[in-house]
Amino acid sequence: MNTPNIKAFGTDAAEAPLKHLNIQRRSVTPHDIQIEILYCGICHSDLHAVRDEWGGTKYPIVPGHEIVGRVTAVGNQVKNFKVGDLAGVGCIVDSCHECDYCKAGEEQFCENGNTIVFNSPDKISGGVTYGGFSETIVVDKNYGVHIPETLDLASAAPILCAGITVYSPFKHWKVGPGKKVGIIGIGGLGHIAIKIAKAMRAYVTVFTTSNSKADDAKRLGADEVVLSTDKQQMKAQSKFDMILDTVSAKHNVNDYLRILKVDGSLVLVGLPVDPLPVGAFNVVHGRKSFSGSNIGGIRETQEVLDFCAVHRITADIELIRVNQINEAFDRLQKGDVKYRFVVDMGSLKN
Amino acid sequence: MNTPNIKAFGTDAAEAPLKHLNIQRRSVTPHDIQIEILYCGICHSDLHAVRDEWGGTKYPIVPGHEIVGRVTAVGNQVKNFKVGDLAGVGCIVDSCHECDYCKAGEEQFCENGNTIVFNSPDKISGGVTYGGFSETIVVDKNYGVHIPETLDLASAAPILCAGITVYSPFKHWKVGPGKKVGIIGIGGLGHIAIKIAKAMRAYVTVFTTSNSKADDAKRLGADEVVLSTDKQQMKAQSKFDMILDTVSAKHNVNDYLRILKVDGSLVLVGLPVDPLPVGAFNVVHGRKSFSGSNIGGIRETQEVLDFCAVHRITADIELIRVNQINEAFDRLQKGDVKYRFVVDMGSLKN
Repeated sequence: MNTPNIKAFGTDAAEAPLKHLNIQRRSVTPHDIQIEILYCGICHSDLHAVRDEWGGTKYPIVPGHEIVGRVTAVGNQVKNFKVGDLAGVGCIVDSCHECDYCKAGEEQFCENGNTIVFNSPDKISGGVTYGGFSETIVVDKNYGVHIPETLDLASAAPILCAGITVYSPFKHWKVGPGKKVGIIGIGGLGHIAIKIAKAMRAYVTVFTTSNSKADDAKRLGADEVVLSTDKQQMKAQSKFDMILDTVSAKHNVNDYLRILKVDGSLVLVGLPVDPLPVGAFNVVHGRKSFSGSNIGGIRETQEVLDFCAVHRITADIELIRVNQINEAFDRLQKGDVKYRFVVDMGSLKN
Repeated sequence: MNTPNIKAFGTDAAEAPLKHLNIQRRSVTPHDIQIEILYCGICHSDLHAVRDEWGGTKYPIVPGHEIVGRVTAVGNQVKNFKVGDLAGVGCIVDSCHECDYCKAGEEQFCENGNTIVFNSPDKISGGVTYGGFSETIVVDKNYGVHIPETLDLASAAPILCAGITVYSPFKHWKVGPGKKVGIIGIGGLGHIAIKIAKAMRAYVTVFTTSNSKADDAKRLGADEVVLSTDKQQMKAQSKFDMILDTVSAKHNVNDYLRILKVDGSLVLVGLPVDPLPVGAFNVVHGRKSFSGSNIGGIRETQEVLDFCAVHRITADIELIRVNQINEAFDRLQKGDVKYRFVVDMGSLKN
């Protein structure tokens, strides 16, 4: 049984602007929670998917995967949420529950294919999943997370994707006190990475191509800012334990591999379209690694939310209304946002 | 005080063939051992250096860094070697002794610059170091290793470079029982990597572009051989914990990144001249790494020699005389060797 006529905002075609749509959500099963969506962040992946830039988009598409809202119904088997709780939904809304990765709470690696919050085959209700640009969402209780009450709800939304995407590799590569960490790029991911790495008490150097962002990087907590186009400044850098690369455009990763210490890792979380040439000497000498990381599991998403609550971290956002989404997508395309758009989903009703 | 007129084999110029030379060695200091060289392997790095293909070669050059011989003199402070002992020398003959890496026995990462066995500034006697294509060598007692008496001396020589170069990453990336390991290329490094990975009780798959080497890979111990030019065969591969890449020519690393399991590593020990393009998705999805590794420290070089003695592992070699070295270099350039040339240095005297 589905609930029809849920208001949403999406599009029927790659070239068309987003518009008001009606979608169906499944009725709340015994294991589900239903969430009234209050805020939803906008990530570059939404734009890629809407415009079918990675291929495979099925229309109509309703994007949005940084979802914060309030629980409005729970199934009779649900114990971890009650009506009225704050709840969040990120990228993953289902997975096999059975493979070693799912059992370990690393659903991002599910061996049998996880279900992404939008544009993914829905194993429960059939059809395709719809994301957070809508009034409500229904998810399995184990794929919702608790949003700490002390966080500002709108600016907490980006933690569900941008936050976990940078937190997970920081944890995996053991960022902490005494570690020298680099962050390449100050955007949606980079700006929150600065805050999180500082809260982890690492020494944080930010690399940017834009002199105008240097002051902002300092304000966000960076210990040092390096203009990556300045050869002298780059030459003076060395011995990074880990460098987080948030850049999705073409760039020279060898400049960063060179300044890692022995056993250091350059970790890509951006997704440039073209392959990145890696010089053999830059990994062979010093046993260095060029690695990647992609979001995180549900357990760790809860962990980053709790971490952000303790350290009073949220994203720097521009709060917009639904009718500004198309303009926001255009600005996002140009990198013109400081540093994350979040949609006030209440404006969908008007 | 130096000892002049040591017979050696080297060259005065990149274009010239190697010929008989006379060199000086330092006199044995209280901390030194002097070794009569019995066998010396030929590695592609010797060829690169002789022909100045990496730049920085100082002439005359005497190559050779897989040295096995017998101790003929020891300084009065030497306790770990006595006259008559078998001894080996690999790539590193000195380092700072003081940095954290040297203290940890990882002299390959010495922060103050280690001394390579040839073509490296000699901090003790001045000038430039000369390698193993010579009658004798004098090294600090802490940079010689013990060659187990049970090993065939000629075919043990390649363990000093080829052996440690593959053993060290296998240890670092925890190759062992239950691990699925790939080895790309069956040459000087690859053929001994197969033997060592099998002795470590991993499941070993060998990737080769040459069907004619498949039988040999099996003979060397491979559990499986994959023709890497065959798309179907490549497509059927998956879930490697670690793949060791011994290829120094241009090749597509993305084919191998794709078949790693979550958190798997593709580890380059070859040194292709051109950068290798890495697709972002191939590292981001599954948190994979493209890494490198280069030789190993003295402690670990001793460890691999002892490991090879226990498991009766040596290289498959073609034993040649000094006057065949130029021909061997030409054949090495074409990849025409199964699988390592070793020079009988006794032939230098004739």
